[in-house]
Amino acid sequence: MKKEVKIAVLGGGSWATAIVKMFTKNLSNVHWYMRNSEAIIFIKKEKHNPNYLTSVEFNLAQLSLTDSINEAVSQADILVFAIPSAFLESELKKLTLPLTDKIIFSAIKGIVPETGKIVGEHFHDNYGIPFENIGVITGPCHAEEVALDRLSYLTIACADKDKAKLMASQLQSEHIKTKISDDIIGTEYAAMLKNIYALAAGIAHGLGYGDNFQSVLMSNAIREMKRYIKRVHKMKRNINNSAYLGDLLVTGYSTFSRNRMFGNMIGKGYTVKSAKMEMNMIAEGYYAAKSAYEQKNSFKRKARTPIIDTVYGILYMNENARKSFKKLADQMD
Amino acid sequence: MKKEVKIAVLGGGSWATAIVKMFTKNLSNVHWYMRNSEAIIFIKKEKHNPNYLTSVEFNLAQLSLTDSINEAVSQADILVFAIPSAFLESELKKLTLPLTDKIIFSAIKGIVPETGKIVGEHFHDNYGIPFENIGVITGPCHAEEVALDRLSYLTIACADKDKAKLMASQLQSEHIKTKISDDIIGTEYAAMLKNIYALAAGIAHGLGYGDNFQSVLMSNAIREMKRYIKRVHKMKRNINNSAYLGDLLVTGYSTFSRNRMFGNMIGKGYTVKSAKMEMNMIAEGYYAAKSAYEQKNSFKRKARTPIIDTVYGILYMNENARKSFKKLADQMD
Repeated sequence: MKKEVKIAVLGGGSWATAIVKMFTKNLSNVHWYMRNSEAIIFIKKEKHNPNYLTSVEFNLAQLSLTDSINEAVSQADILVFAIPSAFLESELKKLTLPLTDKIIFSAIKGIVPETGKIVGEHFHDNYGIPFENIGVITGPCHAEEVALDRLSYLTIACADKDKAKLMASQLQSEHIKTKISDDIIGTEYAAMLKNIYALAAGIAHGLGYGDNFQSVLMSNAIREMKRYIKRVHKMKRNINNSAYLGDLLVTGYSTFSRNRMFGNMIGKGYTVKSAKMEMNMIAEGYYAAKSAYEQKNSFKRKARTPIIDTVYGILYMNENARKSFKKLADQMD
Repeated sequence: MKKEVKIAVLGGGSWATAIVKMFTKNLSNVHWYMRNSEAIIFIKKEKHNPNYLTSVEFNLAQLSLTDSINEAVSQADILVFAIPSAFLESELKKLTLPLTDKIIFSAIKGIVPETGKIVGEHFHDNYGIPFENIGVITGPCHAEEVALDRLSYLTIACADKDKAKLMASQLQSEHIKTKISDDIIGTEYAAMLKNIYALAAGIAHGLGYGDNFQSVLMSNAIREMKRYIKRVHKMKRNINNSAYLGDLLVTGYSTFSRNRMFGNMIGKGYTVKSAKMEMNMIAEGYYAAKSAYEQKNSFKRKARTPIIDTVYGILYMNENARKSFKKLADQMD
């Protein structure tokens, strides 16, 4: 009998729950860490997550639930991080075990606020994980549709293609198709940048722009994304593949995304501070805009990024959203 | 005083009405032909089209309305055709005047069913209009948003850039931004092909596929569109520009488009015949699928077009939509 890979999913949110569901189609056991111990007690009794994707029922015999990140990490060879990027560092600080012998997959779409880095770079630079042991699991994929068994496509990126294939084989099923990529940096930047563009779409909507403008915004956004990623990591990639354009579209056209909701409030005239308070959380695109803007200023060759510049100006420089978007509209075509 | 260009808009539908509205921002007089003489009487009394974009109020002093296509054509140097492609030939048959001394702009998004050609080619091949006198007005642009003065972007394509510029200057305003292109064939094919992809999106929705799948479908559609257009007319173009990708998105994500509605009915199990009857009209994508499929079989170098093939099979070969989309899903990534 082939020995099963030992995988731990770290995180208790909707995306983590969806990923655990995917693994349970292929693995007899999944280690699952979440910090919320009450949620664990609930799952052990009711067989579903009390807070996210509540329709997904688990076979408890397949789950090794724990509220100790060290316990989960110690049991697994492959760690899948699905913790919101804003909480990643505080979770990692709890670790007493080294990560250096682990394979790390990031299912996190965003920037680590403490370092301004995408997750793969963060693990590499701050935890000494070699790039060939770091991978990315990216969409386009709303967790809610995984719960409903709606056909979804994932891209698994890793510099080491065998590890990407291994991960893909554990995730795929009748309802999940997977694709391999070696563009770990590009896919992760795409997953980060798209949150800024979804936030921009939200601002536009809040300001009263319509579907015609939205389509032009997305058309400009994918070209801007291509220019940006080319500066970060030049390689042959088709920016219209699902992991880049598809991921932009599923988020940019989602009316439920937090980035869009946050942007929408800004467009409707909320201050950034009051939008943050009202939402009781911060959208990934908020951090991403700052990080992407600051990073692009360090590019050797400049990239034209009017959408990122505009979102940054509104969120961090107190610029007027209406006036800024009027200017942005002139820079698009 | 600079002499004003003499323009006639031919058509009485929503897109024709939107285009007349745009021209009235720049021209003191617009010739407007529609075959429905009752609608003309209504407009002359109530100052708005009784059937389309009823909120748009016209200054009657700016309109020269006529139900005679020969009258409109005789008065104008530039003709803007905004007649559904299915009715174009029957309208052109009414003409007793030659078109050879006119500049022709097509605002028609589709295939002329009688010849299977896009409109520009139809005018060139069947009416002897030289390509430098043929142009295309393309979106992404829902007419309804033009009525609401929502910012919209048009691309004006003509082999003769001066003519494209001339047309653009008559259309642009505070709410309409224009861009020039010399890719008349590519923009027109994009406007035609996107109807097939919108129809595919409708079928997918009718079959129960969700937003994750839709984003992958659009990501595959733009790559397929690029391959297709490259075979028809190879030139340097950025397929992610608004006239291609933007136009695909505004239609593919519209829940109101006839193509999507038609596809949705097919996905839900209606036969093609009953969907046609139920809608009391035929979606542009229905003709486009046949024409695009047949044309691609004449390409010297083959192009991989799984989405077009699938839609064609369902609409014309009586193939089962559910099974066909299951196969299509395996060909996408």
